[in-house]
Amino acid sequence: MRLEVRYYDVDSSEPTVLLHDDDCVEIGVQENDRVSVSGPRSAIVLVSRSDTLVEKGVVMVPASVMAKCGIAEGDTVSVTYSQKPDSVRSIRRKMDREKLEKEEIEAIVEDILENRLSKIEISAWLTALQINGMDIEEIAHFTKAMANTGTIIKFDREPVFDFHSLGGIPGNKITPIVVSIVAAAGIMIPKLSSRAISSACGTSDFVETFCDVLIDADRLKRVSEEIGGVFAWGGGMNLAPVDDMVINIEHPLGINPRAQMLASIMSKKVAVGATHLLVDIPTGSGTKVPTLEVARNYARDLMDLGEKLDMHVECAITYADQPVGNAVGPVLEARECISILEGSKHPASVVEKACECAGIILDMAGIPEGAVRAREILESGAAYEKFMQIVVAQGGRPDLKSSDLVPGKYSFDLVSMKSGYIHAIHNKDIVAIAKAAGAPNDKGAGLIIHLKKGQRVEAGEKLLTIYAESEAKLKRARETAMKYHPMDVEGMLIKRVSSSPRGI
Amino acid sequence: MRLEVRYYDVDSSEPTVLLHDDDCVEIGVQENDRVSVSGPRSAIVLVSRSDTLVEKGVVMVPASVMAKCGIAEGDTVSVTYSQKPDSVRSIRRKMDREKLEKEEIEAIVEDILENRLSKIEISAWLTALQINGMDIEEIAHFTKAMANTGTIIKFDREPVFDFHSLGGIPGNKITPIVVSIVAAAGIMIPKLSSRAISSACGTSDFVETFCDVLIDADRLKRVSEEIGGVFAWGGGMNLAPVDDMVINIEHPLGINPRAQMLASIMSKKVAVGATHLLVDIPTGSGTKVPTLEVARNYARDLMDLGEKLDMHVECAITYADQPVGNAVGPVLEARECISILEGSKHPASVVEKACECAGIILDMAGIPEGAVRAREILESGAAYEKFMQIVVAQGGRPDLKSSDLVPGKYSFDLVSMKSGYIHAIHNKDIVAIAKAAGAPNDKGAGLIIHLKKGQRVEAGEKLLTIYAESEAKLKRARETAMKYHPMDVEGMLIKRVSSSPRGI
Repeated sequence: MRLEVRYYDVDSSEPTVLLHDDDCVEIGVQENDRVSVSGPRSAIVLVSRSDTLVEKGVVMVPASVMAKCGIAEGDTVSVTYSQKPDSVRSIRRKMDREKLEKEEIEAIVEDILENRLSKIEISAWLTALQINGMDIEEIAHFTKAMANTGTIIKFDREPVFDFHSLGGIPGNKITPIVVSIVAAAGIMIPKLSSRAISSACGTSDFVETFCDVLIDADRLKRVSEEIGGVFAWGGGMNLAPVDDMVINIEHPLGINPRAQMLASIMSKKVAVGATHLLVDIPTGSGTKVPTLEVARNYARDLMDLGEKLDMHVECAITYADQPVGNAVGPVLEARECISILEGSKHPASVVEKACECAGIILDMAGIPEGAVRAREILESGAAYEKFMQIVVAQGGRPDLKSSDLVPGKYSFDLVSMKSGYIHAIHNKDIVAIAKAAGAPNDKGAGLIIHLKKGQRVEAGEKLLTIYAESEAKLKRARETAMKYHPMDVEGMLIKRVSSSPRGI
Repeated sequence: MRLEVRYYDVDSSEPTVLLHDDDCVEIGVQENDRVSVSGPRSAIVLVSRSDTLVEKGVVMVPASVMAKCGIAEGDTVSVTYSQKPDSVRSIRRKMDREKLEKEEIEAIVEDILENRLSKIEISAWLTALQINGMDIEEIAHFTKAMANTGTIIKFDREPVFDFHSLGGIPGNKITPIVVSIVAAAGIMIPKLSSRAISSACGTSDFVETFCDVLIDADRLKRVSEEIGGVFAWGGGMNLAPVDDMVINIEHPLGINPRAQMLASIMSKKVAVGATHLLVDIPTGSGTKVPTLEVARNYARDLMDLGEKLDMHVECAITYADQPVGNAVGPVLEARECISILEGSKHPASVVEKACECAGIILDMAGIPEGAVRAREILESGAAYEKFMQIVVAQGGRPDLKSSDLVPGKYSFDLVSMKSGYIHAIHNKDIVAIAKAAGAPNDKGAGLIIHLKKGQRVEAGEKLLTIYAESEAKLKRARETAMKYHPMDVEGMLIKRVSSSPRGI
């Protein structure tokens, strides 16, 4: 894309002053050490050194630090060596495979939150975690420390149920259905969701096509206590904010240490005061959890951690070899989700997954035959009624219909070149196409998958319809679809394998 | 210290542009990802994102990037996603304890040199190295790759001898003596030294009090080939420059991964074309190498690595429980060093260490009874003559005398409060006092240790004399000395220990 340029008065997230080499020797600091700059007020900042860009006797100070210290150009200030935070020693202990104490973990989390650790140090911390890990006791301390960096919500009654999906699968629009069924059963479930990070559409991305997702902690509490549930955006509530800071360092390294991932999920559940939690673990090729064995390890970790945190945790390992349902993208997923609440039995995969997950939650709450009861609540219209109460409480229209949701006006059908069976639908390619079409920012962008795995397709029949809000993005999505071949069509015989190269 | 403030037009070592959150979603980048900014020319830069500090449709660009791309404020530029370097994948492989291929190691070194890896990524790399290490084959590839990032010097003849000390011990002024003896024996030894990083005085810090240390590669070659030796500063020659970039990331973490340390030393020896190398490993409490076991491991690693690099490496494990000789600080060390070359037998520890090290080098060159021969060369004045040739070749005065070197005019004697024996001299405290006095920047700053370990001292007798170039720094050094108690004085009986709490 093309953007207009403006001057950048660079003032990075890591305030740094520039000092001459000789002055650095004098002060006793090296590159990336810290100094305290003192004027009327003082600030601790990182050091960058040079023998050409700055004169001896001068300290070059960014505007933010000048403001913080109450100093201006031409002033004389005191610049002295400042020790690195003690938590750097704990980071080194983790490099040495040591088990960290509660207080050390709290100090690391606190120092990240307060910007007292540099990117270099946080990167070393995450790398050490990636390699050497933490045991469940350390992760429990880590989880609580992360939760305590932000808002902690306290409800006036218990139990507080929550539901979380590890994600990684496109089209997973079950959350509003699960919340509506559970709340309709009289169980409180204040569900906070996220927006897409690398996916085509997070729960908040499609929910905000029909109601507000940005609500504050007070409203979350009031609506949940009165109606039994919400489906709001967690990002607006300052829950475990240190987690977001860490994600920015994990992302470029392409790592997500197990300890960090578990603490990240669970700290937000601790922050909303959850007493009971169901975790959906979508398992299949092209997702975060490729095999059943990996899924079981996650489940074991989450349940063990729940025990340490005094939270009842159960896990649902769910099928994720292909997208859930047919729709991918904000408006399209919202339409599919609401149509099921309105009574549609289609797509069965969405109905089934939502009812199974809601059913486990009902079981956890002591309601017999939870899955059967969940389906009854959905089919009776009770879930729809509860859904509409929540929508209205979140500022949505009381006359909302699934048919109100209209995708982008530019569309393209991808048709099969041959007859056969749908042998595979590649999650990552589906996501790439929807993103190329503009999802999740363009609400009307996305795609409909017409045929799912195992279904028969005739040459010339539609496989996908791609929707976009502009012709340019439709073109981009079409090109992406042509490049990736998101769906494999094969005859019943996929490949003939000889038992021996010479034959028999 | 107090410095004048000037505005800092911050332009960090990591060029970064600021983009609006929505534009980031559009481009498909997250914080710390990379984009390519294209005007008449293009540049790859890191991304910082915000939804408050920058408007949609705008990219905030630092001046250096504007210049690189040939763009100005108000221009419209293309900003597109740019993949992270492939070497990030190799860093992840090292996190997973994999052995890296030659090409992967070369790519990492090249990407660090070219600023293609961010601080976050380099920190992760060093942390992975610290925890998972490298085998000798990987370290050999690493060493060669580092050497190839800078100048490679080729001499017109072989063998080329070199000498290196792991350092960490104050007062270690033997290098010019070793070089002079070895060169006087007809063996070429183009010795490059460093300045102090955390110590009170590196070899170059004291050599530059009597001749130039900054010479270029051509002059190094010419002087070495003609006279047989130099004692110049390695920092001026662009040898393995990537090493310095890495040190800036290691330092704040307080780590020095074995693989990095070995490659750092050896890459500079490869760059000067050394065929034979003696490494001095000072071993004792308060140094980098606290025990004989650790010293032997270093020696084994260095010799194994030498074999892979086709370099004949030997090691000398030397005594380092107290400073070498009596003087610490640039002028004082220079004076002590030159007085020995002039014929002084004192301090014996310096004479002995220099002759032992030179002797091993003579042995390596096939000269029988190297240590005996080294002492003869020193005592005959042949070493002094060679020393003066080198000094003059490096721009020093032909009539140089040790007595020319005069320490700072402010001095203070630290006296013993009691009679007894010198039980310990603490290396780290000695360094701290000399640095507080102004070393190594103030050439006349430092200290003389009057009594060494095991010597008898009477109450009121001088232990140390501290020298400084200003009263303020002398005061600071005196306070440091009072605080640290750098020398322990005890009776012959240090502590009486009962064999049982109840007695017999």
